[in-house]
Amino acid sequence: MVWQHTDTLPARGQTDRYPTRLDRPAPHVDRADPTAWGQIRSKELSTFEADGFSVLDGLLRPDEVSEFSGEIDRLAGDSALRADDRFIVEKASNRVRSIFEVHKISPMIAELVREERIVGLAREVLGSEVYIHQSRVNYMPGFRGAGFYWHSDFETWHAEDGMPAPRAVSLSIALTDNFAVNGSLMVMPGSQRTFVPCLGSTPADHYRESLQEQEIGVPSNGDITTLAHRYGITQFTGEAGAALLFDSNVMHASANNITPFARSNIFLVFNSVENTLVEPYAAPARRPEYVASRDFTPLRG
Amino acid sequence: MVWQHTDTLPARGQTDRYPTRLDRPAPHVDRADPTAWGQIRSKELSTFEADGFSVLDGLLRPDEVSEFSGEIDRLAGDSALRADDRFIVEKASNRVRSIFEVHKISPMIAELVREERIVGLAREVLGSEVYIHQSRVNYMPGFRGAGFYWHSDFETWHAEDGMPAPRAVSLSIALTDNFAVNGSLMVMPGSQRTFVPCLGSTPADHYRESLQEQEIGVPSNGDITTLAHRYGITQFTGEAGAALLFDSNVMHASANNITPFARSNIFLVFNSVENTLVEPYAAPARRPEYVASRDFTPLRG
Repeated sequence: MVWQHTDTLPARGQTDRYPTRLDRPAPHVDRADPTAWGQIRSKELSTFEADGFSVLDGLLRPDEVSEFSGEIDRLAGDSALRADDRFIVEKASNRVRSIFEVHKISPMIAELVREERIVGLAREVLGSEVYIHQSRVNYMPGFRGAGFYWHSDFETWHAEDGMPAPRAVSLSIALTDNFAVNGSLMVMPGSQRTFVPCLGSTPADHYRESLQEQEIGVPSNGDITTLAHRYGITQFTGEAGAALLFDSNVMHASANNITPFARSNIFLVFNSVENTLVEPYAAPARRPEYVASRDFTPLRG
Repeated sequence: MVWQHTDTLPARGQTDRYPTRLDRPAPHVDRADPTAWGQIRSKELSTFEADGFSVLDGLLRPDEVSEFSGEIDRLAGDSALRADDRFIVEKASNRVRSIFEVHKISPMIAELVREERIVGLAREVLGSEVYIHQSRVNYMPGFRGAGFYWHSDFETWHAEDGMPAPRAVSLSIALTDNFAVNGSLMVMPGSQRTFVPCLGSTPADHYRESLQEQEIGVPSNGDITTLAHRYGITQFTGEAGAALLFDSNVMHASANNITPFARSNIFLVFNSVENTLVEPYAAPARRPEYVASRDFTPLRG
């Protein structure tokens, strides 16, 4: 379905079409918003509207994979950055798990983000100019790599960041091979069409905890069962350099990784400039800008 | 390779060909013992010698899967059995994770074990009469199902049970579908040819802990890396009723299961009557008989 976005966005105070962080269970919301907001022309995005994601094999060439792998290793080892709030360290191991706002920290990644083969994907799907809502690199170690539980990114971005509608996409660019066995992303194809309200009110500074381990804003066992039977579960596997472009409301998760094969990726979130943030829908305060940017300047080449 | 077993087994006090639970790292041991101890005739076991395992699709018919699923549900819910030592309960959830010696608890499983299509597999591979070294049912729940780390069963059975040689096989009969994403068994094909000595001395009553969570008797990160690169990692997937027959020294593991799809299986360990237990090679005392039987009576139909 192609849908021309002409409505004005709902202001705070109007009915919230995506209610969440509730004190009692609420029915699932059938998404009225489209998945593809623009005209899909690229063959590699042909399944995006139906599945809520597309796999882009070889988005980075092997030599680029090497260069960016070197860059993110350098960042992880940069002791000057260690104390930075944007460095998320895993509780048990004291290892770097993620580095946020990496497109501001690394000039090499800043350049990549602006390339048409990258940002063009987001513009095509979102049908407008776009900006970076969030960027990070993720490091999932082998042997004892922790996964993350089922969730919709949009649920969090709506509740905690004030993102009005699911008109955002994530691009996960694999810098390592993704096998079925090393904790690769699991996605439920089509699940972007169902918004799952979650229980529990959001505590202040929730993001400090939730970036390490999700506790609030996760669907119930019943929700996951319903969605898994309706949509199924597939996995994003592929060689280093492959990427997954996925809708902000796709239900996804990752198992732990006990293989010796570590995984790392560059993770970019593009939001439409017609979907800029208002105040959080279900949280006492905004999250920091390195998690949810309020610089809505469109990306230029 | 087919190898006629004519040697006498090494008695305690002779050189231990599979040293483990050591206080310093030791080189890997190239297995001199064969993988297939008898003449392999069955087509479905044709890869056993090379890989150390074979997948047997449809070993149980769908109606049998239903019957045995009902039986193990009944056992898990039997409150009279709850306090039994043979019931292993998961720390966090208080759920039944395994029931040991299930072929003595359930007449239905006792009968199954003696059927030629079951015990015949073990006799063919082990080239002799066989007995049950251990039996259990395993229940891996969905959502928060814990996996288990890389290990060789033989390492434990040798160290803690006094099993002289890797002349034993396990048969895991799936009572639920095994997908790539729900914590299905990962195996390293061919790894049965390498014995990995492990570090750490075995504390008394180690089995009480180790049945819940392995800590001692696990290979190092370096060992796992070496073996994974040499042998690769594959996964046992298949429909309910499929079974995996695998050598006692195959390196295997399982990731956690955060899908809603629970897994359960009947797990049978057959040992050759020419490989009966002596005293533990690296533990202060024997484990209980429900974990490591010392009734060496051959199985009869």
